[in-house]
Amino acid sequence: MLYRMIYEKGLAQASYIIGCQQSGTAIVIDPKRDIDTYLEVADQEKLKITHIAETHIHADFLTGSRELAAATGAELLLSDEGGEEWRYAFSHTGLKDGSTFTVGNLRFEVWHTPGHTPEHIAFLLYDTPASAHAPIMFFTGDFVFVGDVGRPDLLEKAAGYRGTMEVGARQMFQSLKRFRTLPDFVQIMPGHGAGSACGKSLGAVPTSTVGYEKLVNWALQINDEEEFVRELLSGQPEPPKYFAMMKKLNKEERPLLKELPKPRRIGLHDIQQALDSGMPIIDTRSKLAFAGGHIPRSINIQNNHAFSTWAGWIMDYEKPFLVIASDHEIADIVRKLVRVGLDNIQGYLPSIEEWSSQGHELEIVEQISVHDLYNVRNIADYTLIDMRGHNEYIEGHIEGAINIHVGYVQEQIADLPKSKTLAIYCAGGDRSSIGGSILLRNGIKNFVNVTGGFNAWKEAGFPYVQGEYPSATPTSVAYTSSAVVS
Amino acid sequence: MLYRMIYEKGLAQASYIIGCQQSGTAIVIDPKRDIDTYLEVADQEKLKITHIAETHIHADFLTGSRELAAATGAELLLSDEGGEEWRYAFSHTGLKDGSTFTVGNLRFEVWHTPGHTPEHIAFLLYDTPASAHAPIMFFTGDFVFVGDVGRPDLLEKAAGYRGTMEVGARQMFQSLKRFRTLPDFVQIMPGHGAGSACGKSLGAVPTSTVGYEKLVNWALQINDEEEFVRELLSGQPEPPKYFAMMKKLNKEERPLLKELPKPRRIGLHDIQQALDSGMPIIDTRSKLAFAGGHIPRSINIQNNHAFSTWAGWIMDYEKPFLVIASDHEIADIVRKLVRVGLDNIQGYLPSIEEWSSQGHELEIVEQISVHDLYNVRNIADYTLIDMRGHNEYIEGHIEGAINIHVGYVQEQIADLPKSKTLAIYCAGGDRSSIGGSILLRNGIKNFVNVTGGFNAWKEAGFPYVQGEYPSATPTSVAYTSSAVVS
Amino acid sequence: MLYRMIYEKGLAQASYIIGCQQSGTAIVIDPKRDIDTYLEVADQEKLKITHIAETHIHADFLTGSRELAAATGAELLLSDEGGEEWRYAFSHTGLKDGSTFTVGNLRFEVWHTPGHTPEHIAFLLYDTPASAHAPIMFFTGDFVFVGDVGRPDLLEKAAGYRGTMEVGARQMFQSLKRFRTLPDFVQIMPGHGAGSACGKSLGAVPTSTVGYEKLVNWALQINDEEEFVRELLSGQPEPPKYFAMMKKLNKEERPLLKELPKPRRIGLHDIQQALDSGMPIIDTRSKLAFAGGHIPRSINIQNNHAFSTWAGWIMDYEKPFLVIASDHEIADIVRKLVRVGLDNIQGYLPSIEEWSSQGHELEIVEQISVHDLYNVRNIADYTLIDMRGHNEYIEGHIEGAINIHVGYVQEQIADLPKSKTLAIYCAGGDRSSIGGSILLRNGIKNFVNVTGGFNAWKEAGFPYVQGEYPSATPTSVAYTSSAVVS
Amino acid sequence: MLYRMIYEKGLAQASYIIGCQQSGTAIVIDPKRDIDTYLEVADQEKLKITHIAETHIHADFLTGSRELAAATGAELLLSDEGGEEWRYAFSHTGLKDGSTFTVGNLRFEVWHTPGHTPEHIAFLLYDTPASAHAPIMFFTGDFVFVGDVGRPDLLEKAAGYRGTMEVGARQMFQSLKRFRTLPDFVQIMPGHGAGSACGKSLGAVPTSTVGYEKLVNWALQINDEEEFVRELLSGQPEPPKYFAMMKKLNKEERPLLKELPKPRRIGLHDIQQALDSGMPIIDTRSKLAFAGGHIPRSINIQNNHAFSTWAGWIMDYEKPFLVIASDHEIADIVRKLVRVGLDNIQGYLPSIEEWSSQGHELEIVEQISVHDLYNVRNIADYTLIDMRGHNEYIEGHIEGAINIHVGYVQEQIADLPKSKTLAIYCAGGDRSSIGGSILLRNGIKNFVNVTGGFNAWKEAGFPYVQGEYPSATPTSVAYTSSAVVS
Repeated sequence: MLYRMIYEKGLAQASYIIGCQQSGTAIVIDPKRDIDTYLEVADQEKLKITHIAETHIHADFLTGSRELAAATGAELLLSDEGGEEWRYAFSHTGLKDGSTFTVGNLRFEVWHTPGHTPEHIAFLLYDTPASAHAPIMFFTGDFVFVGDVGRPDLLEKAAGYRGTMEVGARQMFQSLKRFRTLPDFVQIMPGHGAGSACGKSLGAVPTSTVGYEKLVNWALQINDEEEFVRELLSGQPEPPKYFAMMKKLNKEERPLLKELPKPRRIGLHDIQQALDSGMPIIDTRSKLAFAGGHIPRSINIQNNHAFSTWAGWIMDYEKPFLVIASDHEIADIVRKLVRVGLDNIQGYLPSIEEWSSQGHELEIVEQISVHDLYNVRNIADYTLIDMRGHNEYIEGHIEGAINIHVGYVQEQIADLPKSKTLAIYCAGGDRSSIGGSILLRNGIKNFVNVTGGFNAWKEAGFPYVQGEYPSATPTSVAYTSSAVVS
Repeated sequence: MLYRMIYEKGLAQASYIIGCQQSGTAIVIDPKRDIDTYLEVADQEKLKITHIAETHIHADFLTGSRELAAATGAELLLSDEGGEEWRYAFSHTGLKDGSTFTVGNLRFEVWHTPGHTPEHIAFLLYDTPASAHAPIMFFTGDFVFVGDVGRPDLLEKAAGYRGTMEVGARQMFQSLKRFRTLPDFVQIMPGHGAGSACGKSLGAVPTSTVGYEKLVNWALQINDEEEFVRELLSGQPEPPKYFAMMKKLNKEERPLLKELPKPRRIGLHDIQQALDSGMPIIDTRSKLAFAGGHIPRSINIQNNHAFSTWAGWIMDYEKPFLVIASDHEIADIVRKLVRVGLDNIQGYLPSIEEWSSQGHELEIVEQISVHDLYNVRNIADYTLIDMRGHNEYIEGHIEGAINIHVGYVQEQIADLPKSKTLAIYCAGGDRSSIGGSILLRNGIKNFVNVTGGFNAWKEAGFPYVQGEYPSATPTSVAYTSSAVVS
Repeated sequence: MLYRMIYEKGLAQASYIIGCQQSGTAIVIDPKRDIDTYLEVADQEKLKITHIAETHIHADFLTGSRELAAATGAELLLSDEGGEEWRYAFSHTGLKDGSTFTVGNLRFEVWHTPGHTPEHIAFLLYDTPASAHAPIMFFTGDFVFVGDVGRPDLLEKAAGYRGTMEVGARQMFQSLKRFRTLPDFVQIMPGHGAGSACGKSLGAVPTSTVGYEKLVNWALQINDEEEFVRELLSGQPEPPKYFAMMKKLNKEERPLLKELPKPRRIGLHDIQQALDSGMPIIDTRSKLAFAGGHIPRSINIQNNHAFSTWAGWIMDYEKPFLVIASDHEIADIVRKLVRVGLDNIQGYLPSIEEWSSQGHELEIVEQISVHDLYNVRNIADYTLIDMRGHNEYIEGHIEGAINIHVGYVQEQIADLPKSKTLAIYCAGGDRSSIGGSILLRNGIKNFVNVTGGFNAWKEAGFPYVQGEYPSATPTSVAYTSSAVVS
Repeated sequence: MLYRMIYEKGLAQASYIIGCQQSGTAIVIDPKRDIDTYLEVADQEKLKITHIAETHIHADFLTGSRELAAATGAELLLSDEGGEEWRYAFSHTGLKDGSTFTVGNLRFEVWHTPGHTPEHIAFLLYDTPASAHAPIMFFTGDFVFVGDVGRPDLLEKAAGYRGTMEVGARQMFQSLKRFRTLPDFVQIMPGHGAGSACGKSLGAVPTSTVGYEKLVNWALQINDEEEFVRELLSGQPEPPKYFAMMKKLNKEERPLLKELPKPRRIGLHDIQQALDSGMPIIDTRSKLAFAGGHIPRSINIQNNHAFSTWAGWIMDYEKPFLVIASDHEIADIVRKLVRVGLDNIQGYLPSIEEWSSQGHELEIVEQISVHDLYNVRNIADYTLIDMRGHNEYIEGHIEGAINIHVGYVQEQIADLPKSKTLAIYCAGGDRSSIGGSILLRNGIKNFVNVTGGFNAWKEAGFPYVQGEYPSATPTSVAYTSSAVVS
């Protein structure tokens, strides 16, 4: 038996390729969209991918299941649980609770495990004939993580299915009851690791066991359903806005990606055209370079681990766009884009050096240090905007700051206070640089970005408040699908 | 907690780097000798390697513990169990059964687990404060593998410690008793995977759990000590001859490797000098290329997964040597060599094209197909030599064949039957190509190599015998340390 | 002005990219078929390729002019000299003697320079305004090389245009007269370097000047037309057989290559199918590996500088084929194949290790050393076949050897002497390995390949004859287009 | 004969490797310091480097001649012309006008060609026996370039040898007289291409011929000595300050570089130490990123083609330093540093992301657009500093701007006008970013950097003055060796 976890750091997402060397066949569970990774492993290990399975309709990434099926001819095994509304709209082999299938000597038993989503299933693996009666691994998707369980509120918050989150929490409680019946020795292979927005306190250890989770996972320590529901629904971070789009694209018929896009290098002429036509430009350079100078109206999403998430959150899925990225980073960026379904890249500019040296206009982000803000200037002259998540804000923020999560800045543009200069901040500066670029794109120039953010503020020993809820909370925002950058 | 298995396919050997992100520190367990791998992981993950531990004095590879300690300043944690004879002869922190140490928030508890070797220890890991009382992983070295346990006969067979193998088997029985007391949910992180010579039936799954092994591992199914000892000592494959040298080098003071050797490209002049002086030449090309033509007296050890093992087995540790290998393979080959302590590479020749085109002598291996051997020629005109392991031979061989494991050909040279042409074979041709090159190096030219070996013989449907023990078995061979190629 | 020579060693072919930085435009002269090279240079240097020119209808490679025009939209500038028969059959801008065109500040003057071919033109470059009246470079194609001139016999010998070679030689004499009128200081940028089959004594220095060539080039030392014609037509090497196909493909409409083929890795099943259907297999491994064992009926064309030439010569342009080549060499091999228009690769097998280890039949080339041939065996028992070029044969060969150039072995199969075992040789073994594989493919097994070839024979001090013409010369062979491997 | 030009874009410097394939030997002329390039070419072409020659004591880079001699054992051939003061102080084979030496079949004739420097020699190559009496190439070093000749003022201006520049100009006139005696057809292989500070109008074509230069090179059009001297000495750009150091290091005994430094990745702790101890930090990121935020007191020298020159000019040769550069650029930067002898790199930091996110102080460069400067603010409130070369300044500058070449900012610090805010600019922003960082390092914060520089100013159509000399010219500056960043 071959076992390989493919871990994608940007989305903290785990997929698996499990093979039977004797039969030369393999299954991939929850594949990401850049499927060459699986084809290469299969190639190296001399295995043919004959099966592809998903644990549920993913919200945080666009799966590559159908691309992989097209490339390999493998059978597509998907949940038929959860009711009509959650049925995959394209051809597949439907799985139900109790279904089994085999890949060579490997036998998989399907469990229906609703909670995160109504149709969620998990796969219990038996390595026959070695252990026909003792399961070796449990592929749990977003049901049980190491140290956490899947959040049941995404459908309601991100996709607008009113009233589903409490139902989900109660289903999760029941699903976990059944989970406890598994032997302690079974290994848990989850769908996410630390950093995913699909749970709130995922551990950094990649794998665990049923017995260990029973002892350590918070969700398995609570035996009272009401308490469990309350705890599970509290403190979940803001769901990225693109999750609704992912749900839709993962469920319905859509054009397949034949191969990874190879965007062409563009010139200043193309930039000028984009500026004229309003085509969005993602500037992936560092926030400092962006602050130092950027092409007017471009959006700063730095090329780091959070790139996929922010790109999915901020960009309009319907619109083609350009990218500022160096030659040696563009291939990586393309992968990160297609993983969240942003395939519509029209080209990239490796550097804005030429733009700048030819005397074209550079837009600058005005910056202020925490020292200047607190000691030199009069802080009362500024309206402070805290662009972090609500949980972080509650844990501590600068007195008087209004909390507008960066993901909702675009919707709030019209309602932003205008009497004073805005001073925007986040934890370390990444999110406020995104937010600042959205302000500039909307013509709002009267703001400063606080370098180093709240981290620098605390580091400097300046006072801050804890635990107070401000009047304007992000949950009051009406999320509309048109509120993306366009 | 960061967890990373570093799996080296050539030796089927697993080492581990476990880090505590909070403190920024990490431990490496059983490092291989090309330590750059660990330094790179630590670098990427922003961890400082502060501890290095070994489970036992390894026999199958030269550890990089001391090289890694020199490069990082980390503390060296080694067993002080097993008696004076098994004490590491250089400076280290001694561990005993019950010792504990911490790496940031990670707490390690030391178990003395004799059986494979007298000093063998294992490490039980607690991830505090998350689970101060529930161990998460057990680093078992060559104590418990997935599906097997460490063999106790190496010291006796490979290193000449008479009478130790039965003692070891009984210790293993006791150590396994204690193993059963662990909770089922603990994950097992062993020192080897499938293909290692340190056990006889290792599984291909890299990790397991205590509970799963209790159910599936053959060694945990036997409750009677005598039966266990009998079973454990039977059917173990021939131990590679270099194991004795590894034991010695891993225990004693030796010069450290500062960095991986970068052998220079040599010319025909250097080859001529090597031929004149008798310096060994390892030809790493394919067996077919070797058969088609090679530099006289060179040894054919193909650059595949078994390279380290065969190089360790066949080569003389005292002698410098040359290598025939292409530019794009030499770096990989150097790693494989230093992993078994063969650091003394004097240079490499990328191709023998020039040697051949300038009219220098090429030595050829005469080959015969199984069809010709069985149908065209008179098989009675040949003395058949089966160069596989004894277990394979017993399972099936060509009638009349004498079994001389390729690792013992050098010692048997003088005693080889000389009346007829030898026909040498192994399973698929790799080992008989090594063996053929040893014959040629010793001036024996009256032989043919059977292409395709026993696999081709069976494929062709020709008859063979099973289960009969021949008169001359490899166990009768006296293993002397001088019997290496020189 | 940017100047870059792109030199392709395999065909000893030079192409040029010349750019005007001020206008940002560039021209490519005589592009090879893997055009990514030019696109990359243009990209790096921020130039747009606006013009593509050819000096003549090439015979030794398939040009990438039309692929490059399709990729860039550049104007295609081709000769309209030489009469209807030599007119390009697809859309282009026609050039005549005296035509001029400009690329930014660069002015090109067209010379009609027949001799090598009737339509041949050359380009005299002026770097205006720096030197509007002093030409800086002369792009001569196959008109004047460093130390040689283009051969006028290819059309007749390779493409069957009877009676053209003397006409061409006389035209060359006239073209050279005009060449002498150029100023000494003009730099010569030729279409080939040493090793090309388009001339007989090309120098190894890549560039020269008009004045230097006047002093050193043999062709410019002869003032008598008859003597010149005689000298030019004598001693030219055998033209590769694929030249006729290249002439045709370079002149006529043909499907364009969109991108370099990426052949898939195949398995043993595909090999078996190829063997069953008769699909040719090119084995690109070393001749020694081929001799040691190969898949039956495969053709050995080693992956070295001569690969393109031999593949073009030996393979059938109409038939799809497979390749044996390692993963790290296949991309290079694909380039070498498409350069001569062999685009029809169906897949590649990285190694025959698995074929061999599974007991499939291996074909072997029987080899003999020159020592054995001369000293041990009775040379009179063999019919010696010298597979080198006729010129080499005349310079020296083993007594009694028959000269059959390897390129004509396929046609001569039926007429090969059959009474004795054949002993085939060439200079160092490469060509006789090709020839041997053709013999085997045609069912002729009664031969031995002389390792080291004539070089080893001379090195050993064995006697040979010089200057005698054998009865059977290669010029008597009837070249038919069907006589390729199929 | 093998001919290969090695062109190093950063210094616009050409070196040559010329080999004789027949003897298997080669010479390198004017090697750069990262000598692995030559060793690789020699390796590929199967040549042994047996000779190394220099045309003169270089001022713009540290030669690798002695490193290459140490690595290969080659003979070092250096000028003994020009008098005692210009004699190399270490062991070498001395060459004089008329000396000859051979490398296989290649014969080199030495010409003494003073002008650029007193000891300057050039090498006339004959490819014997092909052309024993007709020279094929002339390796001219900094004597004759394509379109220009070497400047004779460097010794005086950069190295302080008073009164030498006119003498040099007259010697150059005489040397050129002799140059005219060469045949037109000889190819010119010069020591520099366009962009070098060793001449003033070098062409972009890499090679030329004697005859072409006679027609096109301005220096060969002037027959009157006085006019020639006047013309040659006028309009030469400011010589980089490090030239004096290069002259010294290239002439005297110095420790050799064994291999290219591999600087370690450092952490924030090392940065803090550097800040405490005053160790210089070179920040190689883009000027925009530097403006957006940088580690206080670091110097911005962007990693582009001019990096070597500016690093040599700005940095103190005696002091160790740190570098901010990404992992994928550091190797390239190390090469650029050692080429000008800056070997003392202590480590590098791949990103300042962590520095910034942990709340450490970021220094910012205040920027202003030309539009704001001209239209929004009152330009009279600023003292304008033009940091370009004097020639550029004369050609056109913003009215009222003072010209201080960026290379002299450090010396002028004390004398800078202090009454108003400084507005610094250059052509496109690179040099003013260097200059701005020097201001900040010296505690001067009251300045703004004009984005886009003079290019943007002109592009915007704002008025400027031409041809007026300001009162303070850079030639009045006293250049002292202590005036480097430290």
